[in-house]
Parts: sequence; structure tokens; C-alpha cells
Amino acid sequence: MPMTSATSHSDEPTRVAKLVGAFLSGQSGAVLGDGPHATLTAGADSTDDCAIYDLDGPVTLVVGSDYVRGAKFALYEQGLLTNFDIGYYVVAANLSDIAAMGAAPIGVLTVVRYPHDLDDDGFLDIMAGIHRACTDSGTLNVGGDIGNAERIVLSGSAIGICRTGTALTRRGARPGDHLCVTGPCGILGAAVAYFPKRHANGWTLPEHLEQDLLAGWRRPRARVAEGRLLCTGGYATACQDTSDGLKATIEQLAAASGVGFDVAEDDIAIHPAVSAVAKLIGSDDITLAMSASADFQLAFTVPADRLDACRDAFARSGLTFDVIGRATPPETGVAFTGRDGTRHALPGVAWKHQASDVSGLVAGVTAATTATP
Amino acid sequence: MPMTSATSHSDEPTRVAKLVGAFLSGQSGAVLGDGPHATLTAGADSTDDCAIYDLDGPVTLVVGSDYVRGAKFALYEQGLLTNFDIGYYVVAANLSDIAAMGAAPIGVLTVVRYPHDLDDDGFLDIMAGIHRACTDSGTLNVGGDIGNAERIVLSGSAIGICRTGTALTRRGARPGDHLCVTGPCGILGAAVAYFPKRHANGWTLPEHLEQDLLAGWRRPRARVAEGRLLCTGGYATACQDTSDGLKATIEQLAAASGVGFDVAEDDIAIHPAVSAVAKLIGSDDITLAMSASADFQLAFTVPADRLDACRDAFARSGLTFDVIGRATPPETGVAFTGRDGTRHALPGVAWKHQASDVSGLVAGVTAATTATP
Repeated sequence: MPMTSATSHSDEPTRVAKLVGAFLSGQSGAVLGDGPHATLTAGADSTDDCAIYDLDGPVTLVVGSDYVRGAKFALYEQGLLTNFDIGYYVVAANLSDIAAMGAAPIGVLTVVRYPHDLDDDGFLDIMAGIHRACTDSGTLNVGGDIGNAERIVLSGSAIGICRTGTALTRRGARPGDHLCVTGPCGILGAAVAYFPKRHANGWTLPEHLEQDLLAGWRRPRARVAEGRLLCTGGYATACQDTSDGLKATIEQLAAASGVGFDVAEDDIAIHPAVSAVAKLIGSDDITLAMSASADFQLAFTVPADRLDACRDAFARSGLTFDVIGRATPPETGVAFTGRDGTRHALPGVAWKHQASDVSGLVAGVTAATTATP
Repeated sequence: MPMTSATSHSDEPTRVAKLVGAFLSGQSGAVLGDGPHATLTAGADSTDDCAIYDLDGPVTLVVGSDYVRGAKFALYEQGLLTNFDIGYYVVAANLSDIAAMGAAPIGVLTVVRYPHDLDDDGFLDIMAGIHRACTDSGTLNVGGDIGNAERIVLSGSAIGICRTGTALTRRGARPGDHLCVTGPCGILGAAVAYFPKRHANGWTLPEHLEQDLLAGWRRPRARVAEGRLLCTGGYATACQDTSDGLKATIEQLAAASGVGFDVAEDDIAIHPAVSAVAKLIGSDDITLAMSASADFQLAFTVPADRLDACRDAFARSGLTFDVIGRATPPETGVAFTGRDGTRHALPGVAWKHQASDVSGLVAGVTAATTATP
């Protein structure tokens, strides 16, 4: 069933959007299971990261999978991340997907494949990182697949549950809703832009900023607690994690919900480490803050009359969020108001798998900088 | 937390059994979820392939993950399997794990990572194979992860449900139970022993036998229907798929259930293609039939007074199985009676990931042959 010419090489977003779509349309609503039933309410035909099933009984099931680039994981190859760190990361990346749906995690399945030269200590460190990340989020590593491969391959699936019908999707934002984010973005992307080139370019940053850049890679925190609050309190109309970067997240929320957004540069928190790296690479800080970066924050929308209650609920758990914009009617699109008052498209470079190696990312950031004076 | 010396390289079964165990003990019974509850009744601390959760309501959830060796997949590299075939295979491999628990599949998550030189047609063929395998088993591909990598990486997770408390495990066989298997084993292993070396050795087999050897790789069938019958009818006391080979499966059922088995060579069906390959590689047919081979049959135990009812239930669905032995008290261990009446250990070479490349497997089979006159 050739849908393209024999030598066509679409980029990954195109493959997902156009080529895969033919196989996935019409899934949602399917009732499965010849004993008890499961109704698929969001599958791969939707725009969400996870599949959602309503099961017989009071439970909605949320499941998703994420793969971590093993040895191509640039900071790992450079010795800035340990085996423990990448084990921790694969769990956080997977938990982040179900956190964005507001589900409580009940387990993580992990695939750990390693080359022959990884000794037992290295292997144990990966497993210890996986175990610790599960423990830190109150969940369990319940199995998966272990074995050898040419190089390290880490992949996982996370399983979560919530009360029937309460799972958050990207689809419910309405004009007038506040657009919120649980913390600053762009830090992990800034680390990738900085570390691989710092020696060649003679870049140096203060020790504490270097530590800030690495902290999100070493101990990423899936926003499970925040997702649970948004779900159980019924505050959020739409939610997504920022693992593709803030720009991509906002655009995807807009497309899935059929709204526009008005976002103000003044309202977006910029981490000092992001500002410092932006200066080094010749970018501006807002561009780097909104570009591809797997910070695992949650971006979500809250109706205006629920904002205070939501903020109070977060505060009672010692959590916070920033309001960075407002949903608008779809015809106004996604608009950005700079510090100087000018309005233009969202700055930043969204995550694209085909350009996702380090040089591609840095090149992309630099190109975007050039295009955004 | 170094548990071994810095240069220790345990093989994969040892890593799973000894090194990982410390992280996984005491999982089962854990109650998870701060809204509705899920009780983990079998996790990575058990000997089963999947995790099992009893959820609030009438549903037991079964989830497992399996990785497929991408480019090292020898038959694929030799052009004997297509992109469609390996897409089909990754789904069947994952469904087989939940079929062994008797669950009805409700979805499959797939990780599809591909090198830059895989064109759109090749990518689409993988996705079409995934889609077809899901359709053939009455389930859906509900998402996962798509992107690039140095070489093809295929991994998946399968999700299934059954009525609370009915999931099959490896743990319930009792002395006196009949040991059964849904069909002949060793065919996929024989294909791996034959094809890569046929030109170098000048081997030829009749076309229909070559097709039989490849059929199980090209269109493997997870025994979902058989698993559902065993589960809903309450026939099986223990069940496992044969994806590690029949020898390993029987030994693992024995260990998990705390029984021995008495297995008779006369009762084990040998596929003609297995006999033919055994002759070529200088092995005997029973050794090859019981060695590492991902045939995705189910091996299960049935109490003596339920055997006829089980056989009738299978027959009504157009399905069959063979009785190949009997469970015994644990002190007798796993015993094998050859065609000549001699009793010895089970023949065959079990799957070990560290020795799982083709040359390792063929070497293993040959070594076992040498040791089994």
C-alpha cells in the first residue's frame, strides 16, 4: 500500500500526522474485551500522549510509552549523566505522560537493553535509578524486558488510573481560560545547547548554574502531584506536559482544543541558567526558554472562575504555577506579545525527532535566533 | 550499592534472578492509586511475564512489555522477513505474554524507532504490519513512540483485562495435573539454525518446509483464543507461553509451581521442518524441538478431572492441544523419558539473551547435540 514514492523521507511529525493516521482513525469509542469491557476513549487517533480506557467499574486506565535515546543521549556519552541518571530519567519521562492526564501511577514497565561491555555495576546502577524514580513518585517498576543489544536502549510504559471520566486531555480548553505552567521551561534544552560545545567554544558558567542545568536531567520530576490536583479538583480543562518544549506544547493545546492563545513574554519565567546559555549561544532567552526541552512541566488551562480555587489547592500542597496567557477564539491563532509590545508568532524551535541530535538542536536554536531579531 | 566486583559480567538470567531481585522483592500486594485503587497481585517480583492488578470493580488488568531485536534480527537482515513482518512480530510477541495470562487484549503500545535511511514506504510497512497483527487479534494499536534511532528498534507493551481474580499464572500446577501444549515447538528456532548457514553449508530443503520455517516468523499467532478459553473456563492451573523454548517453559512452570514433571518424548509432536533441520545441523529432532524458539504456543496444566471438558471446549472453537506429560511431586524434578525408554534431563538449550545472536544459538544447539548422544 505505497502512499508515497519509494524514496520519500518525511520528517517524523509528518510521518506521525499523515502516514500513520490512516491506520489509526476511528479507534476511539471501540469497546474491547470479551469478558469485562474496556471502552477506548482516547487512542492513537487522538492527539494525546496516552491511551485512555474506561473500564467496567469506577476506573479509567491511562497508558503510554516513551523511549529514551540510549547512547545518543549526548550528556550521558560525555559522562555528565550516570547510568543511575538515565534509569531515573526513563521512568520520569514515562510518568510525565500519565501525570499530564491527571492519573495516579500504578506501575512502570521498563525495557533495559545493554551492550556486552556494560558490567554488572553499570547495569545495577540503571536498575537502581529506575527503582528510585518509581519510589520517588510512589509507584513500582512491575516488569518489562531485560537483555542485551548493540548499545543501551531504554524504553518504558507507564500505567495510571483515575476515577471514570476524569482523565485530562488536550482537548477541553475554551476561550477565556487561563493558560498556566507549573514552572520554568527550557532548562534541559539549554543544557544540551551548552555542555557539548563548552570546551570547543571556551564557555564557562558559574558552578551553580551548571548544576541547575544538569539537575533536570539527573532528577527530573514528573508532575504527578500537580496532575492529580488538577484532575481530582476538576480545575483543568486541558493539560499536556512540556516534553516537546513550551512553544510546541502551546501550539498542540491550541490545535487539539480548537482555540487560540494570547501569551505575554512578561509572564514567562526565565531561569537564570537559560538566560546565561542564551547569551553564550547568541540567542535570546525567551527563544531558548520556549524551544525543545524535556522539562516535564505541565501546561494546562483553567476557567477564569476556578483560577483562585486552583491556586489555593496547589498552595495547600506546597505547589505553585504561573499564568502565562489566555485562551482566545480560534481565529486569532496563537499570538505572542513581546516585552517591547510587538505581537508575533511564538518564538522557539519545537522538538522534531529527525533533527534531534545535539548538533541539530543547537543549529536549530541558532537558526531560530537568527530569524527572531 | 555495588553488589559485585567492578568488572563482573553476569549473564542475563543471572542479572534478572540475582541482581534485579533486590529491587523488586515484596512488591505484590501493594495497593496503589490515591483515587480508585489498584492492587498489584503479581509484579516483577513474581516469575510471571506480566504484571497483574486487581482494580476497583470487576476488572483484573494484565500488562507486559517485550522488545524485538531490530537490525540484529538475523532473518530480517537477510531479507527473509520484511518490514511488515517485523511489525507484525512485535505485536504478536507482546500479545503472547497476555494470552498466557488468559487476558483479553484491549490494546498494544508500540515503540518504532528507525534509522534515517528507512524511507516512508519502509516505515509504513512496519506500521501496516503492526496494524494487521492487532486487527488479527481483535485489538488496537493505541499509541506509543515513533522517532529515529541508529537502527530499527521495535518494542511494545500489551494491555489486557479479565474478570477479577481469573488471570492465569505459572504458579498453580499441582501433582497429577496434565501438562499440555497448544502445538509443535522449535520451528522458529529451527529457522534461525537453518537460513543463515544454508548457503555456506550447501543445505537445501524442499520449498514447503522452508515456508513452514518462515511462517511462524512472518505471521506468528499469539494464542489469545486458547488463553481466553483456559481462563474463562477455569481449566488451567498454570500457564506460560513457549517464547523461551519448550524446555525452558517446562522448567519455569516447575519452579514457579513447586512441582516436577514427567515428560515423554513419544508425546511431543515434532514438526517435519524441525526434523529436517535437525538432520542438517547434526542434532536430534527432540533437542531442536525443545530448544530456544519463540513459537508463542501456550504450555499449561489441567487437573485430570477437567481434561475432557477442556478438550471439548477447545474443540468447539476449532482448537486443539497435546498432552505431553504429567506434574509430579517436586522431589522427582523434571524427568524425561526418551523413545528408547531411558530417563534423563530435558533435552534442548534454553534461551539466554547473552547468547542469543544467531551464531550463539546455532553453537548452543550444536553443543547440546554433542552432549546428547
